[in-house]
Amino acid sequence: MKKFALIALASMAVSFSSVAQESPLTQEMKDHAVKIGEAAYKSNLTKDLITSLTTEVGHRLAGTANDKKGREWAMRKMREMGFDRVWEEPVDFPLWHRGSASLEMTAPFEHDLHIVALGTSIGTPEGGLTAEVVQFDEYKDLVEAEPNSLDGKIAYVSLRMAKTGLKGYGYAGQARRMGSVAAAKAGASAIIIRSIGTDDNRTPHTGSMNYEDGVTKIPAAALSNPDADLLDNALKYGEPVTLKLEMSSHSHDPVVTYNVLGEITGSEDPEKAVLIGAHLDSWDLGTGALDDGTGVSIVMSAAKHILDGGKRPKRSVRVILFAAEEEGLIGAREYVRAHKEDHKDFDNILLGAEWDSGTGRIINFAPGVGPTSLSVAREIGYVLAPYGVATLMTNTAKGQSDMSLLGNAGMPAVNLGMEPTNYFDFHHTANDTLDKVDMDAITHNAAIYAMFSYMAADVDVDFTK
Amino acid sequence: MKKFALIALASMAVSFSSVAQESPLTQEMKDHAVKIGEAAYKSNLTKDLITSLTTEVGHRLAGTANDKKGREWAMRKMREMGFDRVWEEPVDFPLWHRGSASLEMTAPFEHDLHIVALGTSIGTPEGGLTAEVVQFDEYKDLVEAEPNSLDGKIAYVSLRMAKTGLKGYGYAGQARRMGSVAAAKAGASAIIIRSIGTDDNRTPHTGSMNYEDGVTKIPAAALSNPDADLLDNALKYGEPVTLKLEMSSHSHDPVVTYNVLGEITGSEDPEKAVLIGAHLDSWDLGTGALDDGTGVSIVMSAAKHILDGGKRPKRSVRVILFAAEEEGLIGAREYVRAHKEDHKDFDNILLGAEWDSGTGRIINFAPGVGPTSLSVAREIGYVLAPYGVATLMTNTAKGQSDMSLLGNAGMPAVNLGMEPTNYFDFHHTANDTLDKVDMDAITHNAAIYAMFSYMAADVDVDFTK
Repeated sequence: MKKFALIALASMAVSFSSVAQESPLTQEMKDHAVKIGEAAYKSNLTKDLITSLTTEVGHRLAGTANDKKGREWAMRKMREMGFDRVWEEPVDFPLWHRGSASLEMTAPFEHDLHIVALGTSIGTPEGGLTAEVVQFDEYKDLVEAEPNSLDGKIAYVSLRMAKTGLKGYGYAGQARRMGSVAAAKAGASAIIIRSIGTDDNRTPHTGSMNYEDGVTKIPAAALSNPDADLLDNALKYGEPVTLKLEMSSHSHDPVVTYNVLGEITGSEDPEKAVLIGAHLDSWDLGTGALDDGTGVSIVMSAAKHILDGGKRPKRSVRVILFAAEEEGLIGAREYVRAHKEDHKDFDNILLGAEWDSGTGRIINFAPGVGPTSLSVAREIGYVLAPYGVATLMTNTAKGQSDMSLLGNAGMPAVNLGMEPTNYFDFHHTANDTLDKVDMDAITHNAAIYAMFSYMAADVDVDFTK
Repeated sequence: MKKFALIALASMAVSFSSVAQESPLTQEMKDHAVKIGEAAYKSNLTKDLITSLTTEVGHRLAGTANDKKGREWAMRKMREMGFDRVWEEPVDFPLWHRGSASLEMTAPFEHDLHIVALGTSIGTPEGGLTAEVVQFDEYKDLVEAEPNSLDGKIAYVSLRMAKTGLKGYGYAGQARRMGSVAAAKAGASAIIIRSIGTDDNRTPHTGSMNYEDGVTKIPAAALSNPDADLLDNALKYGEPVTLKLEMSSHSHDPVVTYNVLGEITGSEDPEKAVLIGAHLDSWDLGTGALDDGTGVSIVMSAAKHILDGGKRPKRSVRVILFAAEEEGLIGAREYVRAHKEDHKDFDNILLGAEWDSGTGRIINFAPGVGPTSLSVAREIGYVLAPYGVATLMTNTAKGQSDMSLLGNAGMPAVNLGMEPTNYFDFHHTANDTLDKVDMDAITHNAAIYAMFSYMAADVDVDFTK
């Protein structure tokens, strides 16, 4: 009911604005966008791309041979699909090796627990480290631990992520992102966290973590939820619980990886471009299907649908596949630096949007543009309304993930919001595989990306204004 | 609606039979059974037992140190709960070591695939074996493979188990149980099957397999469903797919393990006993919570509830926790042999029932008794009707799992049937952990077991007649 009401409202808005003023978003542009979108819904391209990427390449851990295979795959596909330009831009980055990781409970009961190293963690000394575990209900309790109170201990944060999407992820994720620093400040030898995930599988969740200059680096790992339950139950006996942690993770000197770009060149002002992005790298546990193979497939597919529409937009549509997102938006940071400082062409980006939300169906469109162009951004949004995409009345979007760095550097952006999914059941785990992808949803998402980016590249408006 | 209709019908039947004839199942027996059942529903015992077993012991792979810990746990618990007799009966059995198992796709694409060795499989030669894979849609196609047609190849059965409970399990499971023989007859070096399971997790399903005298033993392993999907997708390219399999599994000379028994001794004829069973051993990947920690907890709890009822049944209620079920009902086979041949007291078992169905809520009661005693068995069933347990009008039950060997050897039996669950999502995987257990369902199941076994042990009837 709600969805139909939104569609009806939006249709009214489109008609009304067409009559009331001369919009730079012409009826012809809208009609062509709809034509592209309708064709996109009939296409298997997005499905074929995600199937191909996960089957032929698999994971794409930044800096590894698989990362290179992923870039070669993306460039080959974009060339085969007839993109006008396909190129790479270098990104320096310290290669991380996951190595092996094991955790045994040695007292009061004996168990092999399922863990994974957190991304960029150091390893343990060879032979591992055995220590009593000290439980903290959540990150903020760990932060309050007194210096030396955890000397020779393993800190453990047991909070289970609430199933509230990004909100729950952000809150529980503090333990992953900053827990090693807090634990080390209190003297801990290592930190173990309950996985930042909403499932009950023995597939622990990795993810990025941070060290701080001047604070001892300690190994950091995540337990699967069932293993964290087991540890919690063992701790309830009130006896000391001892864990043996062994990890061989380590980082290397910087290597070069690359952001991969592909362009459908604009007919009138090709230097200017709408940038639609995703990240090509992934963690190494699954095949990087949801995170972010879907995004890669959606934005590549969207650009191809524009090409197949037979009419170039006036400005370019550029696909950007960011490198080393997982380790902390490294490819995006370098992109901003290089295009601000070296190429000085950062302002040629008209508008940016990223897809890094797995397999959720797009249900809303949120602009983040200048005050004058907002009405045009909303008109673009209204064209999407009949496809079940509501335009949010906010104007604060900065772009998701990598793209947020570009947004913060001044690029106008739109965010495309999704239906809630079970994304955080699989996120950063071995379970991030093709079977989890909703092919209808990503086909829809590619159609939405194609329509919005075509219109944004064709319409004569400055979104910074 | 249906459930209420059943309850109403059953209540009528109870009243009617009470009036129409002098039943050996007296109103006092029924009332006492209901008293026991009502107390059982209020108890946390079943929940506490399964939590304790999985926390303090974990898996119980037959013949391992954990198997011994499991037996010690069970005997200690039964003694602490005041069982009259607790003892072990030896079972010889060839110890199996899982060792390590890895599978790489080496061409046309490179992937590390998630596998587990099937139980009792041999390993590969050291360094592994690399061979082209030949896909079969299902077991019956593999059986038809010509001799030598798979020489130097790895056979792969890709059938996905239908989500139809035991029916789907039995059908798809042929590949697991007998695939290695069929593959070896056609010359294969190894067999890989898609896991016999209904989930989409990277947690492959182990389970028993068989070799045949005179047929070469080959290594056998199962892929997780997402990994089988990936292999299927790679095979669709039509190029040779090469796998490198390395497994260090091996069996040893027989060791001794034990069936564990505990008894609530009958007040009049203690040699005679109702036998309620489960298997104490488990596979080693999870903590053996569903398979068969729930059964262990349910039957131990049921006996304790009878004890707590304050009135001994005339004949004993005996809990039997079978050894080495997973490797092929080895403890049960020895129990039948020993009690038929050595002790010659097999006929003292009045009636048997096993729980090896995970966390499903009991919804029906199926007798397998002599023609004369059938009406009494049904009367017992009718007492369970108000608790949502329908008595089936069949009379063919032999007992589940281990107990089926006793049923086939002449023991009267009842089967307790469960609501469909997602049991085969977790069965024989690392995901068989405490969080999957429905504590309300197993509390209900223990109440049903307590009521039925109390009545069966107290009523003056010969269930073989």
